[in-house]
Amino acid sequence: MSISANNPNRTSWLYVNKHSDFPIQNIPFGVFLTREDVITIGTRIGDTAIDLGALHQLGYFDGIPLTDDIFLQDTLNDFIADGRQTWRAVRNRIADIFDANNETLKNNTKHKEIVCFRLDEIEMQMPVLVGDYTDFYASKEHATNVGTMFRGEDNALMPNWLHLPVGYHGRSSSIITTHIPINRPQGQTLPEGASKPIFGPSKLVDFELEMAFITTDANDFGEPIPIEEAEDYIFGLVLFNDWSARDIQKWEYVPLGPFLGKSFASTISPWIVTLDALEPFRVESPKQNPKPLPYLRTKGKKSFDINLEAAIKPKGAKETVVSRTNFKYMYWNMAQQLTHHTSNGCPVNSGDMMGSGTISGPTEDSYGSMLELTWKGEKPIKMKDGTTRKFINDHDTVIMRAYCENDDVRIGFGQVKNELLPVFNPKKKK
Amino acid sequence: MSISANNPNRTSWLYVNKHSDFPIQNIPFGVFLTREDVITIGTRIGDTAIDLGALHQLGYFDGIPLTDDIFLQDTLNDFIADGRQTWRAVRNRIADIFDANNETLKNNTKHKEIVCFRLDEIEMQMPVLVGDYTDFYASKEHATNVGTMFRGEDNALMPNWLHLPVGYHGRSSSIITTHIPINRPQGQTLPEGASKPIFGPSKLVDFELEMAFITTDANDFGEPIPIEEAEDYIFGLVLFNDWSARDIQKWEYVPLGPFLGKSFASTISPWIVTLDALEPFRVESPKQNPKPLPYLRTKGKKSFDINLEAAIKPKGAKETVVSRTNFKYMYWNMAQQLTHHTSNGCPVNSGDMMGSGTISGPTEDSYGSMLELTWKGEKPIKMKDGTTRKFINDHDTVIMRAYCENDDVRIGFGQVKNELLPVFNPKKKK
Repeated sequence: MSISANNPNRTSWLYVNKHSDFPIQNIPFGVFLTREDVITIGTRIGDTAIDLGALHQLGYFDGIPLTDDIFLQDTLNDFIADGRQTWRAVRNRIADIFDANNETLKNNTKHKEIVCFRLDEIEMQMPVLVGDYTDFYASKEHATNVGTMFRGEDNALMPNWLHLPVGYHGRSSSIITTHIPINRPQGQTLPEGASKPIFGPSKLVDFELEMAFITTDANDFGEPIPIEEAEDYIFGLVLFNDWSARDIQKWEYVPLGPFLGKSFASTISPWIVTLDALEPFRVESPKQNPKPLPYLRTKGKKSFDINLEAAIKPKGAKETVVSRTNFKYMYWNMAQQLTHHTSNGCPVNSGDMMGSGTISGPTEDSYGSMLELTWKGEKPIKMKDGTTRKFINDHDTVIMRAYCENDDVRIGFGQVKNELLPVFNPKKKK
Repeated sequence: MSISANNPNRTSWLYVNKHSDFPIQNIPFGVFLTREDVITIGTRIGDTAIDLGALHQLGYFDGIPLTDDIFLQDTLNDFIADGRQTWRAVRNRIADIFDANNETLKNNTKHKEIVCFRLDEIEMQMPVLVGDYTDFYASKEHATNVGTMFRGEDNALMPNWLHLPVGYHGRSSSIITTHIPINRPQGQTLPEGASKPIFGPSKLVDFELEMAFITTDANDFGEPIPIEEAEDYIFGLVLFNDWSARDIQKWEYVPLGPFLGKSFASTISPWIVTLDALEPFRVESPKQNPKPLPYLRTKGKKSFDINLEAAIKPKGAKETVVSRTNFKYMYWNMAQQLTHHTSNGCPVNSGDMMGSGTISGPTEDSYGSMLELTWKGEKPIKMKDGTTRKFINDHDTVIMRAYCENDDVRIGFGQVKNELLPVFNPKKKK
């Protein structure tokens, strides 16, 4: 099935600002609460949110094999489980319904009132129930930076790093979406020079600028996925902020890896941009040397040219962009990550999420975490409001954005934006 | 509410062998497929499986606030979310229904036919949908053994180990229950003396003898659980075999922890024994020195005296018990684990599972893994059939059992029993 939804010449009868992340060529998927307080699955064109549950009930998806309630759900998991042919058919159909040359819905005021919402009428929800979440560590620049800081330049990359996409299991229950505030975590840390740990608020809360991909049901228990098939199981991508408490992480992580230094919160952008929508932005991955083992060898363009930025907005002040980087810098691509993950037979299910790991580019302003940008706090960043930051302060809001752009079209992810609140106070419980 | 179900003097009108793990004082919870191919929630007394969905429909739980379909589900998650008062009321009622002095169901042949099953008529299923699974590393003997092997005696325990229950996030999707065979995993390993890794079957597949506890909805996003309340959120325990591929683990695990060396399979016993049923077997934990930080200090008996054993059964031969140990050896107790886990605000939900980590005792025959029992393969174990084992061979079945016993009663967990098959062959796909 061709991806007719990607036709760059198409315009919509819905208004779309030329700088919008969501032209009719994007058609991402999300879950939102409507003005009637109903949860539905939807998409977005320009600044209009579209209720796919309502569209389906009104018959606009006739001819596509979909269960009656596929869009009347709290999560996209079941829709994602339907597989790529269905995703593609639905995206193509949505493009047709909202095409400037199609007057069916455009001229049906009653239907439009049921289907279309202004953004201020809806509230975005978590798009999927994440069964399992894995975070990779796939940016060579990031791994080198962190390795250099903690082990010195000569031992920066561990011996395994160039041979496999290093990853670890993360916590699903604390993945939330945009606009939900996060309390500064408490935990055990070992203060500089101390011999005993203390318990208290983390002093080094950081962001990690990542992308994450969301999978469909990929394999049965025990069955690896060959590398040629891996991309078939990737539904789409979101922005991912892997919030990190560096001091908690440092004390706890040897020998079993990051735990409470990460599991207090991870935040994602609410619209899942499909792999189909990103097709025009495929690029070559960085050259891999040594050549990966045969089960990890990919051909062709397996990376994507996605511009990324992270900003910090102090309370009541303007934001300062602190990092600009690109998803294409990733050393290990998503197909390699998914194939490696299932190489031992580990099952991957619909709604599972895999983070890229912090995405750092080659230049100092393209690093994807405050740890790297300020080099462990040694080089504070100057903010527009005159203050400086080594890490994230209480009441700072961290904002991440991502978009692809060529001469024809811009496909964006919107943003993920969350405020860091002070430590949780049980007496002030909401 | 008193736990009348624990009355040691009670007997049942159902036959219970005196060595049974499942006297009327146990009343565990599980999920099974009935002879009519229906999935239901049930319990077990002696060798009789009891359909709680049917009992509820027949009115035997009248007066206990339960939704109509609470036992007609694929998993125990919703029942567990109902909380301890409900679990206790249901267990007490089941004890009454099957009490030798209660003739209501006993004399109702028609009802009995609907409610009671022989074990060979049912097939046990996963009792919960595990949202998140965490594995701790809470046995000092195990951590010391592994540390000594890999880092030498002087650096055996990492500096953090005595201050916090070290843990890491594990993979939920590959947790399965008893009797499901497992394929030997493939993966990357670095052969002894080699400079480059290879990809192929793991040569060092091991078991880890653990217990795991299953939680109810414990806390909201951002809210820590005080140590005094932690046990309120523990529903019950199962046996847990944390299958491990030592060679894959060794090559991959630095710096982010175990990943594919574990995620090919973890297996649990199918009946969840409630914390209530284990009350008579509370014991003091090992003395903790240094004293834990205040947020981790517990009072009273927070450990449980649970006898554990692991056996290996080669194909067509008798089993050999290779380890006998006890849950009470754990240095960090479950309350400490759960409180530590939520100390940063990480939410814990109904059905989440937390493994103890390998449970090793003080003597060489009480170690909980082949890695330790054979000391990295240096001291092979002699089997009853004359063969020896360093690790697990293809077609070996690993069997774990657990039980508590005092003068009055024996409360057991049954077993978890899984065969290791050769590497998955796509041409022979079932």
